[in-house]
Amino acid sequence: MRTVAAAAAIVPAAVEEAYEELARRLAEIADLEKVSALLGWDQQTVMPALGAGARAHQRATITRLGHQLFTAVEVGQLLDRLEPWAAALPYDGDEASILRVTRREYEKERRVPADLAAEMSAAATSAHEAWVQARAASDFTLFRPHLEHALELRHRYIACFEPREHVYDLLLEDYEPGMTTADVTAVFDELKAGLVPLIAAISEHTDAVRAGFLHGSFDVERQRQLVVSILDAVGFRPDAWRLDTVVHPFATSSSATDVRITTRYHEDYLPAALFGALHEFGHGLYEAGIPERLERTPAGRLVSLGLHESQSRLWENLVGRGRPFWRRFYGDLQAVFPEQLGSVERELFYRAINRVQPSLIRVEADEATYNLHIVLRFELEQELVTGRLAVDELPEAWNARMRSYLGIEVPDDAQGVLQDPHWCFGFGYFPTYTLGNMISAQLWTRIRSDLPTLDEAVERGDFAPLRAWLRANVHELGSKLTMQEALERIVGERLSPQPYLRYLEAKLGEIYGL
Amino acid sequence: MRTVAAAAAIVPAAVEEAYEELARRLAEIADLEKVSALLGWDQQTVMPALGAGARAHQRATITRLGHQLFTAVEVGQLLDRLEPWAAALPYDGDEASILRVTRREYEKERRVPADLAAEMSAAATSAHEAWVQARAASDFTLFRPHLEHALELRHRYIACFEPREHVYDLLLEDYEPGMTTADVTAVFDELKAGLVPLIAAISEHTDAVRAGFLHGSFDVERQRQLVVSILDAVGFRPDAWRLDTVVHPFATSSSATDVRITTRYHEDYLPAALFGALHEFGHGLYEAGIPERLERTPAGRLVSLGLHESQSRLWENLVGRGRPFWRRFYGDLQAVFPEQLGSVERELFYRAINRVQPSLIRVEADEATYNLHIVLRFELEQELVTGRLAVDELPEAWNARMRSYLGIEVPDDAQGVLQDPHWCFGFGYFPTYTLGNMISAQLWTRIRSDLPTLDEAVERGDFAPLRAWLRANVHELGSKLTMQEALERIVGERLSPQPYLRYLEAKLGEIYGL
Repeated sequence: MRTVAAAAAIVPAAVEEAYEELARRLAEIADLEKVSALLGWDQQTVMPALGAGARAHQRATITRLGHQLFTAVEVGQLLDRLEPWAAALPYDGDEASILRVTRREYEKERRVPADLAAEMSAAATSAHEAWVQARAASDFTLFRPHLEHALELRHRYIACFEPREHVYDLLLEDYEPGMTTADVTAVFDELKAGLVPLIAAISEHTDAVRAGFLHGSFDVERQRQLVVSILDAVGFRPDAWRLDTVVHPFATSSSATDVRITTRYHEDYLPAALFGALHEFGHGLYEAGIPERLERTPAGRLVSLGLHESQSRLWENLVGRGRPFWRRFYGDLQAVFPEQLGSVERELFYRAINRVQPSLIRVEADEATYNLHIVLRFELEQELVTGRLAVDELPEAWNARMRSYLGIEVPDDAQGVLQDPHWCFGFGYFPTYTLGNMISAQLWTRIRSDLPTLDEAVERGDFAPLRAWLRANVHELGSKLTMQEALERIVGERLSPQPYLRYLEAKLGEIYGL
Repeated sequence: MRTVAAAAAIVPAAVEEAYEELARRLAEIADLEKVSALLGWDQQTVMPALGAGARAHQRATITRLGHQLFTAVEVGQLLDRLEPWAAALPYDGDEASILRVTRREYEKERRVPADLAAEMSAAATSAHEAWVQARAASDFTLFRPHLEHALELRHRYIACFEPREHVYDLLLEDYEPGMTTADVTAVFDELKAGLVPLIAAISEHTDAVRAGFLHGSFDVERQRQLVVSILDAVGFRPDAWRLDTVVHPFATSSSATDVRITTRYHEDYLPAALFGALHEFGHGLYEAGIPERLERTPAGRLVSLGLHESQSRLWENLVGRGRPFWRRFYGDLQAVFPEQLGSVERELFYRAINRVQPSLIRVEADEATYNLHIVLRFELEQELVTGRLAVDELPEAWNARMRSYLGIEVPDDAQGVLQDPHWCFGFGYFPTYTLGNMISAQLWTRIRSDLPTLDEAVERGDFAPLRAWLRANVHELGSKLTMQEALERIVGERLSPQPYLRYLEAKLGEIYGL
């Protein structure tokens, strides 16, 4: 009661009324976004194949209505009325942040016609169905018209705005507000400068690591039980989470207490399901950490995919590929697969899951070469969007770049250009994976300094301190701050590839005896 | 091309434009209804328990937006503009029917404030969560406040309208447009007049049927496989349907090619899962039969629950409890449960699944006493709504009436007043089950006359002729006609309990030697 009275004393009634009216509108819009996410989850996990046509209509309608509600002239008027009041409030407070994020998105979204927003949504749904079939048949021609349509829609989207320095900027900032193509290129160049010699040095010591025992025959149901038991240990809650099996793993949420993660099982390759599940767990934990008071606001929509990926990559790699983690779980793993791993020492396993070797599939790539998969996609996306590359030249360009960057021959499009579904939904997502890698190492440096006994806790299977740190320092922010602002707040510096390079050099240098 | 040209020649451009504008609006509203149905499916089948709070917000928002879109003044103006044109069109044509159904629902819905519609939706979601817990704990007090709130909301709903003859009329017609409390009471009285002596006569010959072998130990996974194989045979299509396991079975659809049915398995009682699945299959097939051209219109929303239940009861009982059906499937069933049924003759099994015996649970009741479960609910609903019965007196009243109508003692509320979830969502649904029973027999009489070799087809496992008849005569109509209009069209008479009584008398009379 005191809080309300205190607030009433300093907030003029007209402001309070306007804020409540805006909050009511934003809550409805947030509901529609969550509904759209759930429709997408349903489509990718449980929907019968022939449901896709109606689903495209449904998602387009939800998108159109959300867009109309958000771009209503009243939203702009309410922002105008509230911003003078908010200017005196703390920058990182809930109210000022919600208004700032709402203004940023409002100014972008109001320029896009509702029909275009709906068409982009419907096209994404159809493209995803086509991608599933194209990938299964390894036939790029099934996907090509959808990719061409997606590009055409992005050009119509870009044409809604004033020109930016780079035509790709507008797409990128949808996934990483505040970052430009030039910003990303600069950090990627710095990263590459450190990565390329590291990978080259490792390639001269490949016999330091054997990993044949990760390939073989691993019963899928046993894998699933193992994944479930490890997820339970790290923080999966059955009353608030789901785990499902899909073609291309992803995480989403209907709310902070309805988090849905997915994985896929390869009968012949053990790491895929396990590290995929840890990756999606990291995403899920971020969604589960959205503070309730931000949940139905734009500041509860986690728009920095760099930060989002930092959470997934942190759990997948910095935790999941670390020695303390396997001190806890390797015995369990051996017990599940005694024939395959009973005689493999833990240290050999640790080295195997950290082996650096150029490979075909991004989501299964090691921590070092992973980023070359991203650079490849970042470059191809820019070339597609600027028109330097035609869609029908894409498979060829993909394969040529795989040869040049990773020395890999692509045997078919399913394992090449069709391996990822992201282009069904847009362009600009991929670079955030490598941003996430960098951010995860920046966070990890700070976490290790704040939690000096973290390794011991992980070894005991106690992940509560790490979860608490992430919640208090990262998740609690929602998307009140941009990724760069959040980094400055949390680790005291802006985005940098150096901690990630130092982490890789130390870890891989030790394994490969560099 | 010819059709378009012909239409353009006779339809003035202004009318065509108005019709298209109305159709566009109605399609968006239909999408929202399907989305809401999917959110409900998700909640009842796969949602983590803690997702309920946010889900209530989401469904309320979808309901509020759908309500706002439908009751927009423009919808009324478009109807006004189009109705003079439609007056000259065939009554049962798509356009005239869509306009007529839209007008009927518009006149009802526009009187209800959007906030009330949203509150009813949110309350239903919360009530359902409470019901699941109350039923699991067999504790009515957990459900009572939700039921009281639901009643209070219905009184606010009823107050939006001019008084009807009976306060319950307004609720009933939401589930069965065109029917009044007096209409239902009249046919129920006529039905009871035939049923009560039939059940009494049977009660003197109970030793004619043994059914102990239906109770025992039936492996759930084997039951599931059997259910799947039988559903495949009758018309379940894996690319357009789903089957899931739930606490309280239901059917819904996201579209005609995304039909979702459910069942539940009792390890100790064989018929529950199988007949439940056939029941929901009948509902699903009706949804799958909605013509594509009606799908995103109000005439594609199957609002007569009497007709809907006629489809489920037809497959569950007239098909599934018939001799021809088991001539085809009994060998399969014996092969799945050889220990339990290997030595039970088919005729004994046929009699057992048709045994008449008063019992606790509506969905497992036989075809005769089932209707007394409905009469009980129909009466209690009216008493709750008129206030003659207070919510906290309900369990007592339920148990007293179970004693009086069925001679049954209710051991606990889970098997009594808490067995069904319907009151989470409203009042007026239950009577449509018995209307469905009557209608199913009226349809069956006509089907048997139109398809003289139906029994032979069913015996062969060929359900295509029956599906085709239902599609052409019932499903194809969508909800263009009211239930009474549809019956006059299909069977040449209005709703009547007589065919159902004749069917029961013949079937049960033979089994019990009356």
